[in-house]
Amino acid sequence: MTSLHSKPLALKNVTVTDSFWRTEQELVRTAVIPYQWNALNDNVPGAAPSYCMHNFKAAAAQNKRKDTQGNAFVPPKYTFRGFEALPEDPANPDPDKFYGFVFQDTDFSKWVEAVGYSLAHHPDPALEQTADQAVDIVCAAQLDNGYLDAYYILNGMDRAFTNLRDHHELYCLGHLVEGAVAYYQGTGKDKLLKAACRFADYVDERFGRKPGQLRGYPGHEIAEMALVRLYEVTGEQRYLDLAEYFVTERGRQPYIFDIQADENAKRDADANYKPNTDPNRYAYHQANKPVTEQDEAVGHAVRAGYFYSGLADVARLADDQDLADAAERLWRNIVDKKLYVTGGIGGTVDGEAFSYNYDLPNDSAYSETCAAISLAFFARRMLELAPKAEYADVMESALYNTTLAGMALDGKSFFYVNPLEVNPYACHKDSRLRHVKPVRQKWFGCACCPPNIARIVESVQEYAYTVAEDGGTLFTHLYMGGVAKAELNGTAVELDVTANLPWQGDGKAVVRLGGDAAGTSAQAPARFTLAFRLPGWVGDESAAAAAITATGESESGADSSRVTREIRDGYLYLTGEWRDGDTVTFDFPMPVRMLAANPLVREDAGKVAFVRGPITFCAEEKDNGANLHLLHADVEALLADPSAAKVEEFDFHAGAKGIDDKGQGEVEDVTRRMVKLEVPAWREPLPAAVAAAGEGAAEVPAFAPLYAVYAPVKREPATATLIPYFAWANRGENEMTVWLRG
Amino acid sequence: MTSLHSKPLALKNVTVTDSFWRTEQELVRTAVIPYQWNALNDNVPGAAPSYCMHNFKAAAAQNKRKDTQGNAFVPPKYTFRGFEALPEDPANPDPDKFYGFVFQDTDFSKWVEAVGYSLAHHPDPALEQTADQAVDIVCAAQLDNGYLDAYYILNGMDRAFTNLRDHHELYCLGHLVEGAVAYYQGTGKDKLLKAACRFADYVDERFGRKPGQLRGYPGHEIAEMALVRLYEVTGEQRYLDLAEYFVTERGRQPYIFDIQADENAKRDADANYKPNTDPNRYAYHQANKPVTEQDEAVGHAVRAGYFYSGLADVARLADDQDLADAAERLWRNIVDKKLYVTGGIGGTVDGEAFSYNYDLPNDSAYSETCAAISLAFFARRMLELAPKAEYADVMESALYNTTLAGMALDGKSFFYVNPLEVNPYACHKDSRLRHVKPVRQKWFGCACCPPNIARIVESVQEYAYTVAEDGGTLFTHLYMGGVAKAELNGTAVELDVTANLPWQGDGKAVVRLGGDAAGTSAQAPARFTLAFRLPGWVGDESAAAAAITATGESESGADSSRVTREIRDGYLYLTGEWRDGDTVTFDFPMPVRMLAANPLVREDAGKVAFVRGPITFCAEEKDNGANLHLLHADVEALLADPSAAKVEEFDFHAGAKGIDDKGQGEVEDVTRRMVKLEVPAWREPLPAAVAAAGEGAAEVPAFAPLYAVYAPVKREPATATLIPYFAWANRGENEMTVWLRG
Repeated sequence: MTSLHSKPLALKNVTVTDSFWRTEQELVRTAVIPYQWNALNDNVPGAAPSYCMHNFKAAAAQNKRKDTQGNAFVPPKYTFRGFEALPEDPANPDPDKFYGFVFQDTDFSKWVEAVGYSLAHHPDPALEQTADQAVDIVCAAQLDNGYLDAYYILNGMDRAFTNLRDHHELYCLGHLVEGAVAYYQGTGKDKLLKAACRFADYVDERFGRKPGQLRGYPGHEIAEMALVRLYEVTGEQRYLDLAEYFVTERGRQPYIFDIQADENAKRDADANYKPNTDPNRYAYHQANKPVTEQDEAVGHAVRAGYFYSGLADVARLADDQDLADAAERLWRNIVDKKLYVTGGIGGTVDGEAFSYNYDLPNDSAYSETCAAISLAFFARRMLELAPKAEYADVMESALYNTTLAGMALDGKSFFYVNPLEVNPYACHKDSRLRHVKPVRQKWFGCACCPPNIARIVESVQEYAYTVAEDGGTLFTHLYMGGVAKAELNGTAVELDVTANLPWQGDGKAVVRLGGDAAGTSAQAPARFTLAFRLPGWVGDESAAAAAITATGESESGADSSRVTREIRDGYLYLTGEWRDGDTVTFDFPMPVRMLAANPLVREDAGKVAFVRGPITFCAEEKDNGANLHLLHADVEALLADPSAAKVEEFDFHAGAKGIDDKGQGEVEDVTRRMVKLEVPAWREPLPAAVAAAGEGAAEVPAFAPLYAVYAPVKREPATATLIPYFAWANRGENEMTVWLRG
Repeated sequence: MTSLHSKPLALKNVTVTDSFWRTEQELVRTAVIPYQWNALNDNVPGAAPSYCMHNFKAAAAQNKRKDTQGNAFVPPKYTFRGFEALPEDPANPDPDKFYGFVFQDTDFSKWVEAVGYSLAHHPDPALEQTADQAVDIVCAAQLDNGYLDAYYILNGMDRAFTNLRDHHELYCLGHLVEGAVAYYQGTGKDKLLKAACRFADYVDERFGRKPGQLRGYPGHEIAEMALVRLYEVTGEQRYLDLAEYFVTERGRQPYIFDIQADENAKRDADANYKPNTDPNRYAYHQANKPVTEQDEAVGHAVRAGYFYSGLADVARLADDQDLADAAERLWRNIVDKKLYVTGGIGGTVDGEAFSYNYDLPNDSAYSETCAAISLAFFARRMLELAPKAEYADVMESALYNTTLAGMALDGKSFFYVNPLEVNPYACHKDSRLRHVKPVRQKWFGCACCPPNIARIVESVQEYAYTVAEDGGTLFTHLYMGGVAKAELNGTAVELDVTANLPWQGDGKAVVRLGGDAAGTSAQAPARFTLAFRLPGWVGDESAAAAAITATGESESGADSSRVTREIRDGYLYLTGEWRDGDTVTFDFPMPVRMLAANPLVREDAGKVAFVRGPITFCAEEKDNGANLHLLHADVEALLADPSAAKVEEFDFHAGAKGIDDKGQGEVEDVTRRMVKLEVPAWREPLPAAVAAAGEGAAEVPAFAPLYAVYAPVKREPATATLIPYFAWANRGENEMTVWLRG
């Protein structure tokens, strides 16, 4: 059987010209990246300092002292100063001390990764110069042996790698590698890449199954997938081997986390220490059992998404069927039992984690932005293992819905948690919802989500295409306007795509051969396959396939077409002889789909959600009034006439004042073209006294008994106005729900 | 205007002979009280020791040393040893040290209170002797100045009353007084009562608004209502004044809790201390503002219920309209916006507290047993302020539903938290539900609920009757078989009641005059009023009134009846000339009532609950299969024909094996006569693969997509079997729900 593996097109080989994603990328480039740079240099007024660059500078200075003092240099002896260490006097941080979270280094790595992507398709000499200077600072912090984590360099290397569970050194390595590869690929500059290789080499020496090596693995995963990237860019097998080691060593007994906890307690003579004997321990870290025995996605959702991404990578490159099966099992569990209809994952705030099967609460959801991003990472890697439309469907949903919902339409505030139902009154009053913010926040002390959005948005075209390992097939996974360049069976091929996603399903892909972008000279025909995803949101695979036609399929007078079609795993494979200028047109039906959840999802019982194309919609109070739980979709009317749900393109006006003295929830005036739905609905009326009192009804005096004999609910005809989920909370604090009662 | 005040009949003047409450009282007498005694003497195998009697003995020994050593005695200097102090070696607790929670003394007080009630109507010399010996031990622990809280006596009196917010001394006083009064009333023995008075006198000297006094009040209320009882039994005005002071001082600024926190920080030179500046601070303690400014029931629900009880007591005895208005406002807020249909209160585990208005989650409910009991306390005191049927309706619901649900039918295990919906799978998997136990627990380290059940069940007849302040009216609030003795307008009157509550609404009350219980000799007629509550559960006040007839109303041949009737505030007042042997018969309709919640209760949207008489019903998995969220009440059928809900008296067989190696959830085989409902229903079928897999469906492999295009739900006809809520979880771990989808 031939391999089904494929590899993404490099970022610089794909341009993005469609208005949807260009707008998002410009937001990130012009708003997020500069903001991030200020943040990691502690230059954002009103925001808590990151201390990230401060720490690297302190480490560099220490290295210099060491060089100067030689043997007289006394390295710091380790003391634990807290998971987040803050200066006693915030106005005067000690220039020689480490501050912030143990993983604070990654602020830089994520930023430089986004910068690398941005520079790959949008040259900007000033930004590049800033980044080069930052790279210099970071590289100066590296120890001679290659170690590069400012936390231990400054706090004391005698305890490096002694608390793998909590202290994030390998997480820092992973992000550093991701950033370094992206910066190298975006600029061709390898200084940071070399530093990352040296740190990876050092880790490779220290970790493994050979005598004298530490049989450990990351407490927070990402190094696995990062090392695979490092392997792919350097060709050094040892990085792949190290990634494979981390993936396969994870969860083996005796647990390294137990061993290190024992050792640390002994070292610290900790009288209160009690070994962790919970039989399910380290599920939070996906380390409760070896991955080949795992069949349920558990624990911290971001860690999980990163781990499963690395797992899929290693499975593909090591061609390991057991690992591929594990990845598929974990994927199935997520998609069949733990996925929000917004492409989000993570049902519980406790551990920012996956909840149990089918537990997908809407109002107390965690659904972290980073977790949706990690799911997109995982999905693309599953596509690389084998092209199946389901992977792309989920990836597309995660990107268009929860990932983008993470950022305001002005690019200046962010959601960490993405609930599917919000009653702001409850968020303010109910401590059990303390993680749920009804408006986006300006920045976070633990600033993971904004930079994660930045890096995925700036590299979104890497998710659109892959090329089969044998070089004969170009897969189009996402329909995104722009030009994709690939070499197929030795021929330079360009696919010049026009698309109107996510609002309309039509578009075309013009084939250019021989690299002549202008397409003016006729190039020699070539044989290869163009495979196009049949989006699940069409609702009918045959209809989706019928919506695609290629010039070569219908040559007039030809007894057999040059290009033949085959449907496999949700992809339409168009194979044959392609000529320069051949055009593949597509016009996917994009019906409004009224979805119900599996009956085992208790939180969604009796409710429906509306999706159209890759977009999941939601109802906001701004359009529909308060008490959204009393607004019902008129399911009978919609069943009788599916066209009763009206689709309307319109100008969405974002803009809001802040809700507190910190300006949280503030959004600048921005207008974005998008689609809204007008859905037949009905409303349960409130008793008159409440209706008169208007908003904040829960504060009005009692008007009706708490319990009364049941009477049939009156139905006031109504229309529900639904906007894309990613656009919610851009017009001030208000109620929102994705699921409407039926 | 004449006073509407009334006072309960003393416990020893009311017997309980009906099978329902006799069974409950016997359970408490034979199972709970002996178990409690063992518990507070650390004699329950497998249970954490209470150390309660240990502490009193240690304090007594210390007193003895002091007496022996005289001036040479060095009192302990205070050190904080934790909110719960445990011995380093559990096998060898230090006989001189205090262990357990700061409020551990109350284990004794609650026990002796239940014992007092039990002895009042069930003499038991052996039990009385045990109690006398315990009283001796406790009294020996008292200091010469009257102070009696073993925590500070043993840990160091230099810090007594310096942490009123957290250290429960006044809570210990309150429970001691309650226990002492009950024991005195049950046995006539006043040794403990005198000790309680001395402690109260000491507190009265220390606390108040006079110069040099501490302007403090309890962190955990109960002293307020207890001091009122002490006033009522001793006639000493100073106890009422102290209660009034505690009620009216509470919540005044500057907050005593702030002042003491500042002082303690200074004393301890605590560098990390930060004053609490939350503008809503002390809402948990109902001390955020003065009670006359409070209009929402907030904070820890048990504290609140106790406080509001004391408030109503003081309002009545001080005849203070402002306080009475405050009590009524808080009552309205609870009943209109914060009351479960099971008579429970407390929507959130955070702070074991009231949640915001209309937030009444079913699965994550707190609804502590003690909170329902405190609501019954409050309700009875509202009745004492003014007889209104609503107070009695709520009191009755709290007693029959959540209070009794707190105890297994064998009296040997207990619920602290009383959810209205349980999916055991979720309870085990979901850390956000860690407070919700799907089966009753054997005992609790913080053992508040079992003793609270014991004391209210053993004194339940005190909730059935009150006599108007002017002595002319006997109110029947609860219909309970037994004899109630009262003096009405100078005549000794007995009401000999037969009733079949809660299962049937019929019964009668025979009037005996002159104390001749046998009723053989004709006594002189007398004028007075018998007032009978018209239960809200009849659904129609006129129908309820029509269901009551008195002999004196229908004398044949008389041109006007001897007894006239008037309906006022939900009571039927029968006034006139009563003759010995007159009979008041009642036959209240007891329809099955299908209730809906106010539309602002989001958690109950689209759902119905079934009640009949005072009993709230629920569906259990044992009777209805798993996935109760897919079982719908057939509301159309029930609206069309209300008699479609069948009422069936039957033998309920309790009995269950434990679910773990500690035997949690174990219930002995017990048979109880009760009523179940068979309600027309329908079921959403599960996809075939799940149905085949049976229970634990969430563990079966995926069988159907997580999201699919909505299709009308199939309706499989079904019958929902509903049992009384108080009887749930007596047949092993299983799903339960009070609210059924409509």
